[in-house]
Amino acid sequence: MAKNGNRILVALGGNAIKQAEERGTAEEQFKNVNTTAIHIVNMIQHLGKDDRLIITHGNGPQSGNLALQQDIAKEQIPPQPLDVVGAMTQGQIGYMFQNCLQNIMTAKGVKVPVISVVNQVLVDRNDPEFVGENASKPVGNFLTEEEAMRLKAEKGWIVKKVKPNAPKPWRRTVPSPDPIANVEAEAIKILVNAGAVVVASGGGGIPVVKENGKLVGVEAVIDKDLAGERLAEVVEADTFLILTDVEKAKLNYGKPNEKALDRMTVAEAKRYLAEGHFLPGSMGPKVKACIRFLEWGGKEAIITSLDKAVDALEGKTGTHIVKG
Amino acid sequence: MAKNGNRILVALGGNAIKQAEERGTAEEQFKNVNTTAIHIVNMIQHLGKDDRLIITHGNGPQSGNLALQQDIAKEQIPPQPLDVVGAMTQGQIGYMFQNCLQNIMTAKGVKVPVISVVNQVLVDRNDPEFVGENASKPVGNFLTEEEAMRLKAEKGWIVKKVKPNAPKPWRRTVPSPDPIANVEAEAIKILVNAGAVVVASGGGGIPVVKENGKLVGVEAVIDKDLAGERLAEVVEADTFLILTDVEKAKLNYGKPNEKALDRMTVAEAKRYLAEGHFLPGSMGPKVKACIRFLEWGGKEAIITSLDKAVDALEGKTGTHIVKG
Repeated sequence: MAKNGNRILVALGGNAIKQAEERGTAEEQFKNVNTTAIHIVNMIQHLGKDDRLIITHGNGPQSGNLALQQDIAKEQIPPQPLDVVGAMTQGQIGYMFQNCLQNIMTAKGVKVPVISVVNQVLVDRNDPEFVGENASKPVGNFLTEEEAMRLKAEKGWIVKKVKPNAPKPWRRTVPSPDPIANVEAEAIKILVNAGAVVVASGGGGIPVVKENGKLVGVEAVIDKDLAGERLAEVVEADTFLILTDVEKAKLNYGKPNEKALDRMTVAEAKRYLAEGHFLPGSMGPKVKACIRFLEWGGKEAIITSLDKAVDALEGKTGTHIVKG
Repeated sequence: MAKNGNRILVALGGNAIKQAEERGTAEEQFKNVNTTAIHIVNMIQHLGKDDRLIITHGNGPQSGNLALQQDIAKEQIPPQPLDVVGAMTQGQIGYMFQNCLQNIMTAKGVKVPVISVVNQVLVDRNDPEFVGENASKPVGNFLTEEEAMRLKAEKGWIVKKVKPNAPKPWRRTVPSPDPIANVEAEAIKILVNAGAVVVASGGGGIPVVKENGKLVGVEAVIDKDLAGERLAEVVEADTFLILTDVEKAKLNYGKPNEKALDRMTVAEAKRYLAEGHFLPGSMGPKVKACIRFLEWGGKEAIITSLDKAVDALEGKTGTHIVKG
């Protein structure tokens, strides 16, 4: 089946599911996901009948909570490794999204199937992130030096001092390898081509490496925007829409000469990235994912906040990244 | 797209994922799932090119472990309710199945997409299981009388004395309402019609009720064979294959005059069920699901063990239930 409408890949940040100050009860998360889902259904109602919307999302707070629960209960129940924890959060968050989206669509008379899929993403065992202490992604809760050293010794964790002056300055850090390919590409294409709204590649996907011809889960966390870009390629997205907590990306972020960006070309984005305007682990990978999307063949990438999504799609706000 | 081959709905029991004596590490579960997946791929290789295989599975040990972890860590992290826990196990077990199935199929040169979906199942808020202390499904670990009474008071749990002479005779029991409909039927049909092997309705599905036009998760556990039967209807299955730990269902189970059943008609199955030959919570719901499947319009239901699946499909073993 050929593609004959426009396709929008929406990448949702952690704030779409859990606010920073919240503990993460199911009620809180359903409330946030419902708010997010209202914006998404607004977008869907803006689309033409052949257009498609595909959703991916982060899972940082959820996998953090789940990994901590597993660690606390480790004497009684064997903790699952990070790949399995990631899969569990895909079930958890996927359920919340499909339930809220379905309920809102039913109320509005929008008849489109919504489905979340369990989704692996291939990474390379030789990725620099797996080498030595290169691992760059902090996960889980903050630790005292004593706790950090104990966990390093007990479990072989890589721990890093991420908040030097805090009472608990340490955190576990895990490899954040570059996503190579979405494993369930074929099934996702079937669903999107048939008209479904698909939630996929949740939390950056379940990280797997190829070993002796088999896909094997690894203890890692893939950046959800970079993995979302691979998903955008799979579904042949025209627009890659990254929704985060700011309306626009900024130059000189946090400095007196800070400047919001309305538009940048790929060449400009690369230069700004090299100049250090975008924080690693934050705006950095988002801009990198946008560059990759445009170089692959996408038409436009947009970075904006959830509540500005429809306006940004109409060109009224957000940071738009274009080929040049 | 019209259906033009045979379709087999395979319902896998808990032993397909975790053996009773195991603690439930990821390694153990991957090993068991891999063994199960080898049998499933054997079945797939026996099928014609238009035939389809659809999979559902239990989640008792996994949701039990996860709920216990959440309870142990409840001071630090808010525990998720049973519907969310169910969704999490769909992610966990779905990942294990699709990973193992894909690896075995790749090795054997079988090129079929495999995908697990997050899946809600509708139940009725007025189901008798939600009334008073009717709830019949024991979940989680065994409790002392003191623990049971504390949890009853603290959380409003229904607790029942399920092993009268054991040191920990009590368990939490939750409603096990009758499944009415598979919520994501449309998306599942799209995938099956397009040729994918789909894993759905895991753990009996995420239980939801309709409230003011919305689907809302509830604290319940749906029987996975009865929910699997609803899935069989959705995908228009010809054969409903329930794989458990025995080769055949038995009359006078556990008695000196115990007799394995090769074949029974729906009328016989109903009579045996009424006469109490099949244990509730064990063979009972399996036989009930088979009766329902045949009365809906299915051709044949089979109850057998995992290692006899191919033989049973060829009519060599298993208990075959037919219309009459």
